[in-house]
Amino acid sequence: MKILFVGDVVGKVGRRVLKQLLPRVISELGPDFVVVNVENAAGGFGLTAEVWQELASLPVDVFTSGNHIWDKKETASLLDHEPRLLRPANYPEGNPGRGLCVLSSRKNGVPVAVLNLQGLTFMTPMESPFRTADRLLATLGPEVKVIIVDMHAEATSEKQAMGWYLDGRVSLVVGTHTHVPTADERILPQKTAFLTDVGMTGPYESIIGFKPKEVLERFLYATPRALEPATQGGALSGVLVEVNPETGHAESIARVFRREKES
Amino acid sequence: MKILFVGDVVGKVGRRVLKQLLPRVISELGPDFVVVNVENAAGGFGLTAEVWQELASLPVDVFTSGNHIWDKKETASLLDHEPRLLRPANYPEGNPGRGLCVLSSRKNGVPVAVLNLQGLTFMTPMESPFRTADRLLATLGPEVKVIIVDMHAEATSEKQAMGWYLDGRVSLVVGTHTHVPTADERILPQKTAFLTDVGMTGPYESIIGFKPKEVLERFLYATPRALEPATQGGALSGVLVEVNPETGHAESIARVFRREKES
Amino acid sequence: MKILFVGDVVGKVGRRVLKQLLPRVISELGPDFVVVNVENAAGGFGLTAEVWQELASLPVDVFTSGNHIWDKKETASLLDHEPRLLRPANYPEGNPGRGLCVLSSRKNGVPVAVLNLQGLTFMTPMESPFRTADRLLATLGPEVKVIIVDMHAEATSEKQAMGWYLDGRVSLVVGTHTHVPTADERILPQKTAFLTDVGMTGPYESIIGFKPKEVLERFLYATPRALEPATQGGALSGVLVEVNPETGHAESIARVFRREKES
Amino acid sequence: MKILFVGDVVGKVGRRVLKQLLPRVISELGPDFVVVNVENAAGGFGLTAEVWQELASLPVDVFTSGNHIWDKKETASLLDHEPRLLRPANYPEGNPGRGLCVLSSRKNGVPVAVLNLQGLTFMTPMESPFRTADRLLATLGPEVKVIIVDMHAEATSEKQAMGWYLDGRVSLVVGTHTHVPTADERILPQKTAFLTDVGMTGPYESIIGFKPKEVLERFLYATPRALEPATQGGALSGVLVEVNPETGHAESIARVFRREKES
Ligand SMILES: [Fe+2]
Ligand SMILES: [Fe+2]
Ligand SMILES: [Fe+2]
Ligand SMILES: [Fe+2]
Ligand SMILES: [Fe+2]
Ligand SMILES: [Fe+2]
Ligand SMILES: [Fe+2]
Ligand SMILES: [Fe+2]
Repeated sequence: MKILFVGDVVGKVGRRVLKQLLPRVISELGPDFVVVNVENAAGGFGLTAEVWQELASLPVDVFTSGNHIWDKKETASLLDHEPRLLRPANYPEGNPGRGLCVLSSRKNGVPVAVLNLQGLTFMTPMESPFRTADRLLATLGPEVKVIIVDMHAEATSEKQAMGWYLDGRVSLVVGTHTHVPTADERILPQKTAFLTDVGMTGPYESIIGFKPKEVLERFLYATPRALEPATQGGALSGVLVEVNPETGHAESIARVFRREKES
Repeated sequence: MKILFVGDVVGKVGRRVLKQLLPRVISELGPDFVVVNVENAAGGFGLTAEVWQELASLPVDVFTSGNHIWDKKETASLLDHEPRLLRPANYPEGNPGRGLCVLSSRKNGVPVAVLNLQGLTFMTPMESPFRTADRLLATLGPEVKVIIVDMHAEATSEKQAMGWYLDGRVSLVVGTHTHVPTADERILPQKTAFLTDVGMTGPYESIIGFKPKEVLERFLYATPRALEPATQGGALSGVLVEVNPETGHAESIARVFRREKES
Repeated sequence: MKILFVGDVVGKVGRRVLKQLLPRVISELGPDFVVVNVENAAGGFGLTAEVWQELASLPVDVFTSGNHIWDKKETASLLDHEPRLLRPANYPEGNPGRGLCVLSSRKNGVPVAVLNLQGLTFMTPMESPFRTADRLLATLGPEVKVIIVDMHAEATSEKQAMGWYLDGRVSLVVGTHTHVPTADERILPQKTAFLTDVGMTGPYESIIGFKPKEVLERFLYATPRALEPATQGGALSGVLVEVNPETGHAESIARVFRREKES
Repeated sequence: MKILFVGDVVGKVGRRVLKQLLPRVISELGPDFVVVNVENAAGGFGLTAEVWQELASLPVDVFTSGNHIWDKKETASLLDHEPRLLRPANYPEGNPGRGLCVLSSRKNGVPVAVLNLQGLTFMTPMESPFRTADRLLATLGPEVKVIIVDMHAEATSEKQAMGWYLDGRVSLVVGTHTHVPTADERILPQKTAFLTDVGMTGPYESIIGFKPKEVLERFLYATPRALEPATQGGALSGVLVEVNPETGHAESIARVFRREKES
C-alpha cells in the first residue's frame, strides 16, 4: 500500500496549494493513506478553528503538527476534540490532545498508526522522543503493522538517530520542522523508510515560508520583528512510501514536489 | 565557467571517497574551480598536518571549513600558513587563519573569491556573518566578479537569509554543516545560486557520518560518548554551478551525488 | 564619591517600591550618582511612554536596561529621544538608542560614564560585549575617570569574565538580568568593584518577579503561558560603591537591600 | 536538627579548603547531617577514584553532584558502588548511579533523604526534574520527614520554580552549579528553606573557580581553551538550615562562608 506524507503547510499560500494540488497528487499517485503536517497553517503559526474547518474537509486521514501548534490558545480545544489532529506525543502529560492515533485506510481497510514526536536538540526540553516512541509503540496491537512517524526536529543528527532507532519497528520515519526538503530518502537496513526532512507546503520564494525582509531584519538587528508569510513560489512537498501491509516494511520511498504553476 | 563545491569531508571514508571520486567528477563535469569543505576530515573532527598533506595534493583550489576546524590544536598553524585553507571569517580577530581568499582559476584565469562564514543560530556567538560579509565583500576589487560563499550554519532560516541578503552580490551561497544534502537548489531573483545544505562527503550509512551506536547512546542516556566515524555507504556530495565570469551571475545550479560503488 | 546602582525594576510593585524606597535610601546613604535598570518596569516586559514618565521624575541620573527593553514597540522612540535611557551597547548598529552616556554628577560635578552591555551566553547573539567595551571605553576623554558598567547577562562566568576584563579600567562592573542578588561583592585586584548580580527591585514573593503559578506551568507543561508580575514581598535591591573621583578606583562596595515593610 | 549543605567543591583548592574548614565549621555550627556537592572536585571536572578516596574520609554524610560528574569515565563505577555519592536523579534510566538516598543522621538517628536533581533550561535535556521529584518523593516512607533537594541548574527561574513546587513537601531546596552564592535565603510559605545558589567551595579569586586567562580567551576568541582551576582566594560556601525533625519543616536558614585565611 502507498502512504503519502505532506510537509508543514505554511499560511494561506500553503493551504491554497494543498487544496489545489493534493487532489491531483492523490489521483496521480493513488495513496491509500494521507498524512499532512499543519503546525504552520494559520498565518505561519499554529491553527485556528476556522483554518481547521478548511483543512478537515480535505482528503487527508491524519494531521500532525509540532512546536508551533501551541501558538494560538484556541487550538487547545481542537486538540482535545479532533482525534485525527495530533501534536507531538512527548509533550508532558496534562497538555491537551494526543500524539498517536490508529486509523484504518479508507481505501483498503489496513490499520495505520501515526506517531508524532518532537526532538529535543535546540528545542523545548520534554520527554525523550526515543523513550516516548518505545512507550507508545508498545501499546499498539499486533495487527498494526503500518506505522508512520513524524519526527518534528531541528537537528539532522536527532532525526537520523530516530530513523536508526526505529529501523525495523516502523514503516516510515520522516522529519519535519526545517521547511527544507532533504535529498536523502532511503530504506534503512531493517526496512524502515527514512527522509531527514520532507520540506514545507507553502511559498518557496521566501525564507522558510516567510517574507525575507523581516527575517533579515531579525538577523541584522537582533531585535524582534513580526514575520509575515510570503506570497510567491507556492509548492507542495511530500514523500510517497510503498509499504507491505502484511509486514509494515517499506518497499520504496520517493520525494514528491509540485509547484503551483506546474499543476 | 563552472564551479564545483563539495560538502564536508568526514573522516577516512570521506577522504577515500574524495580521492577516488573527485578526479572522475572533475573529468566528467569539467569545473574551472573546485572548493571542498574539510572541517571533519580528520576522524570527523578537524584537521591534522598529515591529513592536510593528503588533501592538499588533490585537484582542489580552495578548502573551506567550519566550527570543527578548531577541534585539534595543530590546525592553528595550518590555518596561519596555508592561504588556500579557510576558516569562517567571522571568528573574532586574534584567531589564526583567514576566511576569505581570491585565487585565479587554473583553467581560465578568472579570479574567484571564496568567503567562508558561520551562522550564529544554535552555534557559538561571534560577529554577525551578515555584517562580516558586507565588510569583506567591500574589500574585493571590481575585477572579482565570481564569488562563492560557504555559509556554515545549523538553521535553515539563517542560511536562506544569507542567500537573500547576498542575492545579486555573489555567485553562490551554499550551506554546509548539517551533513544532509537539501533538495532546494535554485537561482534567486538577482542571479545568486543557492542551496541550503550541500551534504557531506563521507559514509552515508550512519548518523551524519558517525556510527549510530554511540550517537544513539548520547540521545538515550544524555551522557558523553566518544563518536566514531562510520565505515559504510561512502558518497561524495556537491553542487555544480555555472557562472557568467563577466557578471558573476549564476546561470544554473545542479546537485552532484556519487556513491562509491557507482563510481 | 558614592554611586548607587539599583537592579531591575519589575512591574508595578517594582515601580512602587522604587518610588517609596529610593528617596529614603538616597537620604540615608547619600549617593552622588544613581543608576537604575528598568528593563522590566512595564508589567515585567520593557517600558511604555507612561511608565517612562513615572520613572523619569525620580531622583535617578541614568537608566539602564537589557534584553526586555525591546518587548514593546513604543520603546524605540524613547530610546532615541531620552539620552539618559540606555540599552545594551552591543546591539547591532541600526537599532534605536545608545548604550553609553556621560553625565556630570548633580551633586559634585564629577563626570560619570555609564556603559550598558549584554552577555552572549544563553542569550541573543550580537557583538561581543568585551569588544564593545574596548571600542566604547576608547571614546571616553581622559577626564572621565568614574565608569559604571551594567553587564546584563545570564551566565555567572561571563559576568565575572567582564569584571576581570575591565579590572582597573572601570570603577564598577555590576551584573543584572537574573533578578537574584548574589553575595559575592568585592574589589578586584586593579580596583574595580564587582558584583555578579545586583538582583531585582520588585516583588520577591515570586519566581524572579512573576507569580509562581504560570511559571510553574511553563516548566511542567512545556507550552506557552502568559506570565503575571507578582504582588507580594516588594523590595529594592542595589549596591553602593565608593569611588575615588580622581582615579576612578573603587574603595568599597556594599549591597543594599530594603524591604517595603521595613521602610 | 541542623543540616549543613556545602556547595560545589572545585579542584585541589576546593578539596584543601574542604578538608581544612569543614571540621571547624562542623565543630562551630554542630550540624547533624552534612551534604557536599562534589561535581568539580577533580581538577574542576568530575571525580576520580583517588579524589573520591580523599573525600570519602571526610565528615560528610552524602555527596551530590551535577552535569560535570560525567566528565571522567572512571566515575561511572564510583556512582554504581558508592551509595552515598549521588548524581542528578533525572538522568535517563540506564545510566550508572542514583539520585536519591536515605540515611540516618549519625548524631541523632533521624532519617534524612537527599534528592539530587538537574535543571533543563540551558542544560542537557532529560526527564523534567519536577516530574522526577514527584516520582521519587512518592517512594519515601512516611517516617522520612527531613528531605534535602540539591537542584543543580543554571537558570534562577527554574531553581526558584523548584522551591515553590516543593514548598511544604521538603525541608530544603538549594541550588548549585553557578558557583556564585546568592543572597536570597528564605523560608517559603509552606516551610521549605530555599536558596537560589549556594556558591562554590574553591578558589574565589577566579572566574567561577578557573583562572581568568583561559576563560577570557574563550570569550574573546570563541575558540576552545583548556581551563585551569585557579589557586587563590580559597573559601567554603554553604548553608545551614534548622529543621524540625518531626515535621520536616525548616525553622531557619543562614548562609555560611569561610575564607581560608580567616580560618
Ligand atoms: Fe513547521
Ligand atoms: Fe516546527
Ligand atoms: Fe561538518
Ligand atoms: Fe560544522
Ligand atoms: Fe531583568
Ligand atoms: Fe534581562
Ligand atoms: Fe559546579
Ligand atoms: Fe554544574
